Amino acid sequence: MSSGITETETVLTLDNINPHVRAAKYAVRGELAVKSEQYRAKLAKGEGKDLPFDTVIAANIGNPQQLDQKPITFFRQVASLLENPLLLEHEDLLTASLGYQKDVVQRARKLLKEVSSVGAYSQSQGAPGIRQSVAEYIERRDGYPSTFENVYLSNGASSGVNTLLHVICANPQTGIMVPIPQYPLYTATLSVLDARCVPYYLDEAANWGTSMAAIQESYDKAKSEGTDVKAICIINPGNPTGASLPADDIQSVLKFAAKNKLVVIADEVYQTNVFIGEFISFKKALRDLQKASPGEYDHIELASLHSISKGMVGECGHRGGYFELVGFHPEVAAEIYKFISIQLCPPVLGQCIVEMMVNPPKEGEPSYALYKQEYDGIFAGLKKRAYALYEAFKKMEGVEVGEPQGSMYLFPTITLPERALAQAKKEDRAPDEFYCFRMLDATGVCTVAGTGFGQKEGSFHFRTTFLAPGTDWTERLVKFHEDFMKEFK
Amino acid sequence: MSSGITETETVLTLDNINPHVRAAKYAVRGELAVKSEQYRAKLAKGEGKDLPFDTVIAANIGNPQQLDQKPITFFRQVASLLENPLLLEHEDLLTASLGYQKDVVQRARKLLKEVSSVGAYSQSQGAPGIRQSVAEYIERRDGYPSTFENVYLSNGASSGVNTLLHVICANPQTGIMVPIPQYPLYTATLSVLDARCVPYYLDEAANWGTSMAAIQESYDKAKSEGTDVKAICIINPGNPTGASLPADDIQSVLKFAAKNKLVVIADEVYQTNVFIGEFISFKKALRDLQKASPGEYDHIELASLHSISKGMVGECGHRGGYFELVGFHPEVAAEIYKFISIQLCPPVLGQCIVEMMVNPPKEGEPSYALYKQEYDGIFAGLKKRAYALYEAFKKMEGVEVGEPQGSMYLFPTITLPERALAQAKKEDRAPDEFYCFRMLDATGVCTVAGTGFGQKEGSFHFRTTFLAPGTDWTERLVKFHEDFMKEFK
Repeated sequence: MSSGITETETVLTLDNINPHVRAAKYAVRGELAVKSEQYRAKLAKGEGKDLPFDTVIAANIGNPQQLDQKPITFFRQVASLLENPLLLEHEDLLTASLGYQKDVVQRARKLLKEVSSVGAYSQSQGAPGIRQSVAEYIERRDGYPSTFENVYLSNGASSGVNTLLHVICANPQTGIMVPIPQYPLYTATLSVLDARCVPYYLDEAANWGTSMAAIQESYDKAKSEGTDVKAICIINPGNPTGASLPADDIQSVLKFAAKNKLVVIADEVYQTNVFIGEFISFKKALRDLQKASPGEYDHIELASLHSISKGMVGECGHRGGYFELVGFHPEVAAEIYKFISIQLCPPVLGQCIVEMMVNPPKEGEPSYALYKQEYDGIFAGLKKRAYALYEAFKKMEGVEVGEPQGSMYLFPTITLPERALAQAKKEDRAPDEFYCFRMLDATGVCTVAGTGFGQKEGSFHFRTTFLAPGTDWTERLVKFHEDFMKEFK
Repeated sequence: MSSGITETETVLTLDNINPHVRAAKYAVRGELAVKSEQYRAKLAKGEGKDLPFDTVIAANIGNPQQLDQKPITFFRQVASLLENPLLLEHEDLLTASLGYQKDVVQRARKLLKEVSSVGAYSQSQGAPGIRQSVAEYIERRDGYPSTFENVYLSNGASSGVNTLLHVICANPQTGIMVPIPQYPLYTATLSVLDARCVPYYLDEAANWGTSMAAIQESYDKAKSEGTDVKAICIINPGNPTGASLPADDIQSVLKFAAKNKLVVIADEVYQTNVFIGEFISFKKALRDLQKASPGEYDHIELASLHSISKGMVGECGHRGGYFELVGFHPEVAAEIYKFISIQLCPPVLGQCIVEMMVNPPKEGEPSYALYKQEYDGIFAGLKKRAYALYEAFKKMEGVEVGEPQGSMYLFPTITLPERALAQAKKEDRAPDEFYCFRMLDATGVCTVAGTGFGQKEGSFHFRTTFLAPGTDWTERLVKFHEDFMKEFK
């Protein structure tokens, strides 16, 4: 940036750029995250002796491999061969000296046949053979058919959500029902699109499950305001809440969508991060419903999303994901295809990791034992950390949180002392944001304030991942909270 | 898709989805490309004995590695280590038996230190150290300073264009000047944004250079229609035209932008694909201008884009790129940062390949000789093919094209016989589209009709890459054209 720029000198100013971009909010990588990066840079330079912490913990974002999580060996071994296929000419060396099993080599050859080169564009929708693997995974998972024509590979799940909302939002009256609290991708994208967010509150008292009363109320209000409600989004398992929905909740949402002619967008990126109960996909619930009541729910349109970023895979830097369309009109699907074509194709290596995620080594295959050990180890580690953090929160005065159910987050309620509320107001910050800044400054732990996700008026929360290893940082949190409560008592 | 869906049964129909998405056109992956994929699938299944060709040539899209181009060894060796860092524990084996040089290992270690893991999210704007490498490249290229704060890594150049247009287009009156013919990313994105494309014709008679008269005329017309013209896009070297702009043309555009307060968007993804003359960046031309006339052009805002997809790198499947902002207001830059944050970060391996593209092995380093040999070989091969295709076109009656200058395309004019025009009309196709379909059906060669890029009323063109190896396919084209002209004489 040249120095001395003033607003009147530049063509573009805050006042004349796209107001809908300007209105968008995305707290996950907002001011708190930026400040934490500054702390990190300071410490990296060997400065920051004055800081009351020696490491920054990015608990603001589900970024497993930035913290402790090791990538799954099978995925990365195959990826290394995809990147340098010349290694395949040394198969003996790979297997004898470098720890590559036969099935690693076979998978690499199969994927290379599919994509020619990970450096080449694929079809816009993703390589057909990889989409076929995804369809087979969905079939195995749900017990109902899926076809590769309905599978669209994407650049993480985020680009899938972006695509779906772009196509559905027709004008400023279009409304999309979004859970509150929610992952702010939804509200931010709706801002950019100048469409209406129709918020429905999740039920904190019922472990952040869906409340049909709240959904109905929100829908009625929107309709009464002239909103053309077109879709309902559900995040299951929940982000930021971690809630894992039971079958009844899912079927109730589907019935509501059918009755009110809403498209269902099911964000299921945490489908393998479930600690309590089992994950039920919206696709399975829909097919179950259709089977139980033939003819009654045939017209439901469902888009469900998945990703390589979460689960035990945690390959978010590779930007891979997919969505499956169910019941969409072929002409609308063709418009979705055209829209994604404009950005050419999702990263091809990310597509290949999608293939490995949905089709990992099977029992009896040479890489299976290690894969299973790593997968189960990551799962157990996440669960252990979730409970450790849960126990730490239980020790904190005025902090309440339910037992961890799933996803990668805890989202405790905090009851803040009056004097803290007053100080927050003085600093022109939302109370929970004020609390999170204090936490960052005192502990180096970066979280996201509840305001970033939405919450009931007068309630305060924060979201933290439970990805960071060790117990040191949770102890820092306990100590900080004690001091904070003392300071503002 | 369930069978038996009718429009009235689905929530979403062509008539109620986003009309701006529906209005967008993107011919590069349109009907012709879809038909060519069907031919390819047919041939792959061993069917298609009835077809008059035995291979499909995707000359519709600059996708080097789908055709013959081999990736550059250094890039892919480093990438293989980034994917499987455990290989770094076998450095002796890598160097003694697998062809990895010391500098490959060093680069991998350096990049891993920068990104922790290619499976982790980076900062939204891209990893700082990689942006630093880009800034240093720009400095070396132009002889003027650049700082990493102004560099934004992107998901190919396409996402960069998408970001810039999203932020600039404030309302339906916003106008963006776009060259015609153009790469349809621009018009498609403006359609989606419901902003106005302000087309200016390139001068075919002057090797598709810019014509200031045409730019002025287009600008005046837009202003007279109430368009709020905010930016001018230039693609240099040209796509689809291949034109490589001289310094005078570039400075004229910059002066025009300064005079009329336009942001300049310079799409420079083909900057190394130049056969005649030398590439001059808009950044360098701007700094030269500012140096020559101190104070006069200080307020120009320039965004220039580059990519790993083209050049001798050709790693389009990895989706990497960057843009540099010059002279943007910091508050506007902050909005750009927020916008890209919503999609989290560009693929991290793509970021690493950006780093290697801008900072390849240097003379004296162990990988330099092979790198240089591969790089020069690809350059020479592209040039050779460009000229072979040019010679083939010269043989064709009614086909005219200038000497290849740059990029990856030729964009010949075709003069079609009256009877061909009549037949096209009968089939409800644009004449050049009709011609391209006939070409595909007869030869298996997929190109893009001039209508997909825009052209002067009554003129017809098509764009073909010159990436496909061998001369067989150019001979197929010559033969097809002869038959076509005979049929419609």
